Amino acid sequence: MAKKNPPSVFYIVLIEPKYSGNIGAVARAMMNFDVEKLYLVNPCELDNVCYARAMHATKILDNAKTFSCFEDAVKNLDFLVATSSIESKTDKRHLRNPVFLEDFAEKIFNVSGKVGLIFGREDYGLFNEEIADCDIMLKIPTSELYPSLNLSHAVTIVLYSLYLKKASIPTRRRPIGPLEKQKLYEFFEQLLDNTDYPAHKKEHTTIMFKRIMGRAMPSKWEYHTLMGVFSRALGKIKRK
Amino acid sequence: MAKKNPPSVFYIVLIEPKYSGNIGAVARAMMNFDVEKLYLVNPCELDNVCYARAMHATKILDNAKTFSCFEDAVKNLDFLVATSSIESKTDKRHLRNPVFLEDFAEKIFNVSGKVGLIFGREDYGLFNEEIADCDIMLKIPTSELYPSLNLSHAVTIVLYSLYLKKASIPTRRRPIGPLEKQKLYEFFEQLLDNTDYPAHKKEHTTIMFKRIMGRAMPSKWEYHTLMGVFSRALGKIKRK
Repeated sequence: MAKKNPPSVFYIVLIEPKYSGNIGAVARAMMNFDVEKLYLVNPCELDNVCYARAMHATKILDNAKTFSCFEDAVKNLDFLVATSSIESKTDKRHLRNPVFLEDFAEKIFNVSGKVGLIFGREDYGLFNEEIADCDIMLKIPTSELYPSLNLSHAVTIVLYSLYLKKASIPTRRRPIGPLEKQKLYEFFEQLLDNTDYPAHKKEHTTIMFKRIMGRAMPSKWEYHTLMGVFSRALGKIKRK
Repeated sequence: MAKKNPPSVFYIVLIEPKYSGNIGAVARAMMNFDVEKLYLVNPCELDNVCYARAMHATKILDNAKTFSCFEDAVKNLDFLVATSSIESKTDKRHLRNPVFLEDFAEKIFNVSGKVGLIFGREDYGLFNEEIADCDIMLKIPTSELYPSLNLSHAVTIVLYSLYLKKASIPTRRRPIGPLEKQKLYEFFEQLLDNTDYPAHKKEHTTIMFKRIMGRAMPSKWEYHTLMGVFSRALGKIKRK
């Protein structure tokens, strides 16, 4: 008998939030859109200002989990979404090559598991290494003249968009987990290594592959088929 | 000759806002979505907290117009939109019979003139007489368990929804065309053919690859990079 996949569960992950009022405002917005799990990486103190801004959402603050670094916070999450309202125009473009919020909200419910929605620092946003660790980079469309959103506003927009789409969800595929993803990327890197791929392009190309797969959200079956193709190609190349 | 109607211009109207930080946060959100006109009815003082929260949007605060009553604020506006995240269950229902935000955002650009988006008090929202004076009542979908949004969050959601619809958002990535797609799939098939891929699985696997790419919608740059990887792998396999 076919077992139904569990639905996607959203985790709001705030990286080094500096203003306690913002954390409270985020908690309130979460409750406004039925999202409960809050992860905080190296946050400021959750003081009275924080609790006052949370209004009826104090339980979300009480249950928030605190971590001392990014890696610890995300290691149990299945799919990582970096968020930004800013698009890079630098050579690190591939890193920030974004998915737009509306397209994302259409597709993300296909992911079964823990989806981390990751929001950066009030001043510096997310660092490139943090973005590189994520499956996709999500762009919130904003004015080109002043794209920088307040933290709780960014969270609110993302949660609202997801809330709207939630109701009309089609059947879910069973997506691959973090270990499978890791293995897929390793295979891809091996393919590069074994075809004399230019070393200076390797990182770019691997992240690009990650972004493509992040957007495509392959199912288990697709994963195994793709791995089969890669391992055949690798086998052929190595054997000779 | 048909004259084009002037486009709709949005005015954010805050009724008796009590917390100056909220007004500043609203100004920032307005600038994030290219809306400039702020009307304040009987507001609290625009103090340092207000200006700090506005960040780069201080000009919106400087240019905000203050009124002592609702009637004065709205008398020069052409179309009045009351906003709420709460639906009334009382006999005054007809008054609050709402239009949903998504439907509203689709249609409002047909209105040519000054559109007032009216947001109520932090604690009491809008009074029934104020709602009665408006052309429509706009409902922002929220959790039934905790529908009450922070003031600046409500403004942010409405402005974001309008912004999205305004200029069906700047072109996303530059996606690949049908010829490039065809070539990509051909390369993938060649990879299968040259790695003794089981014939009976070939069609399935090619279609699967097509689906993955279809969901990922690769850009031109991603296409060329991916083709580079495939052609290296193919070259290696064939040469030996």
